[in-house]
Amino acid sequence: MPMFIDHNDFRIGEGEKVNLASRPTLISPLYKSKKHYKKMLGEHVEELSRIQNIHFADNRYSLLLIFQAMDAAGKDSIIRHVLSGVNPQGCQVYSFKHPSAEELEHDFLWRSYRSLPERGMIGIFNRSYYEEVLIVRVHPEILAGQRIPNELLNGGKVWDNRFRSIVDMENHLYRNGTRIVKFFLHLSKEEQRKRFLRRIDEPSKNWKFSAADVEERTCWNEYMRAYEACLGATSTRRSPWFAVPADDKANARLIVSHIIVQTLTALSLAYPETDEVRRQELAEIRRMLMEEAPERETEQ
Amino acid sequence: MPMFIDHNDFRIGEGEKVNLASRPTLISPLYKSKKHYKKMLGEHVEELSRIQNIHFADNRYSLLLIFQAMDAAGKDSIIRHVLSGVNPQGCQVYSFKHPSAEELEHDFLWRSYRSLPERGMIGIFNRSYYEEVLIVRVHPEILAGQRIPNELLNGGKVWDNRFRSIVDMENHLYRNGTRIVKFFLHLSKEEQRKRFLRRIDEPSKNWKFSAADVEERTCWNEYMRAYEACLGATSTRRSPWFAVPADDKANARLIVSHIIVQTLTALSLAYPETDEVRRQELAEIRRMLMEEAPERETEQ
Repeated sequence: MPMFIDHNDFRIGEGEKVNLASRPTLISPLYKSKKHYKKMLGEHVEELSRIQNIHFADNRYSLLLIFQAMDAAGKDSIIRHVLSGVNPQGCQVYSFKHPSAEELEHDFLWRSYRSLPERGMIGIFNRSYYEEVLIVRVHPEILAGQRIPNELLNGGKVWDNRFRSIVDMENHLYRNGTRIVKFFLHLSKEEQRKRFLRRIDEPSKNWKFSAADVEERTCWNEYMRAYEACLGATSTRRSPWFAVPADDKANARLIVSHIIVQTLTALSLAYPETDEVRRQELAEIRRMLMEEAPERETEQ
Repeated sequence: MPMFIDHNDFRIGEGEKVNLASRPTLISPLYKSKKHYKKMLGEHVEELSRIQNIHFADNRYSLLLIFQAMDAAGKDSIIRHVLSGVNPQGCQVYSFKHPSAEELEHDFLWRSYRSLPERGMIGIFNRSYYEEVLIVRVHPEILAGQRIPNELLNGGKVWDNRFRSIVDMENHLYRNGTRIVKFFLHLSKEEQRKRFLRRIDEPSKNWKFSAADVEERTCWNEYMRAYEACLGATSTRRSPWFAVPADDKANARLIVSHIIVQTLTALSLAYPETDEVRRQELAEIRRMLMEEAPERETEQ
């Protein structure tokens, strides 16, 4: 693994007063050439795949990766490039869209809770319960549609309360074996404009573009304020946020994959040990299999 | 509603150092005769059914009732007698048995979280996530089977941590519209002995009895200590525990039904108001229905 990526550059401190304008959306490339980038990413993915096999066999911890960002920041492509090398049996991606009628009948964490990764798995939330303090904060009319008793919304503490609910839940999950890593892909408004134009100009990218995306763009500043409040209130030592410069997609992928590998490496993962009883059991089964008369394969 | 039942007699205070031996398992009857009991219970059930209809239409709050007790304390019969009058469409009962393999792959709150009641509903947990600090505490080998990383169990703070996870979750649910009321049916060991004997002696009750129940009985004192720790740590102003004297089943039903009615009454429930737009819409639909030529019923 390359040693020149320092997570702490991107990590949001616990209780930090976040100012996104002072955090870069572009840094000098970690790679020397496109070829070099591919080699590095390949190494990260291979290492990730190797550790995930142990993580899966170990079956005690689970890993939850959360991706949040403005449109066109590259969430989908990061997930594709970084996690494609992992055995899909050990990996579950959930993309959260508009909540269903059933989901709206519950508290705002309910639908995410159901989708939390099992032990041994990597769960990926493409958007997440964090939308509840981002898009819902920028568009308060969504909150009004959630049928929460008015008495409970009074006093304007709703966002602080939601931050608290989230941090409490994440701490609970930590204590029970779930590691959570949260990525905010930090894109500049100008780079989003370029990517939107490309989506319009290249027919093969048209499907990725909707007029609603441009509408959200007009709320850019409100979104940045909502992200700042959210990242500052919910980045903890145990479940940190990383603000990853996202104007250069290749760089962003290298940073994200590196952080994931480091997180899994920090766990004390091991293939389950075979004890004496189990060893004898296996020896016995082996003996039985060996004694079985080999059958001819039947033709179809 | 009769005014002579005072909840506070049975309510566990927040932070109370609970001593179950000092809390009654039997009190003087709230009813004068069997007939009088039936009349009172009927009134409670009718009132509960009436309020539940508004609760269902209001569709903002949800009510979660949790029942925990030693075997034969009357959980099933209380649920049957108190909640049978409620429209089953507004009522969901979950009986938690041994966790499934899938459930064990998640944190200890996961399976309960999925089963939380929707807005407008009454959810009933016949046993609950509280088993995780009761039976699991009395039988630590169950904890060992939960595949929680050892590193997270060290220091012996596992029960305090579980209490904290529970209180945090219940506070979160409160803030989002769920009212939680928790009943510990407080049975004496002698009354359990009598009920077990009846289950053995009456053939129609044999199905209710298993040898495992008697095994748990031998851990009676350990269970009382686990309940005391649990009730003291998790009874809060918002989500209180009630230790209901359960040696007299009729009395217990009157107390439980009364507390449920009072809890729902305290909410500001109302049928949704019909505004002017909706009124005009309804008037228009009415007009169309009236203008329709009545058709003859077709014979089959």
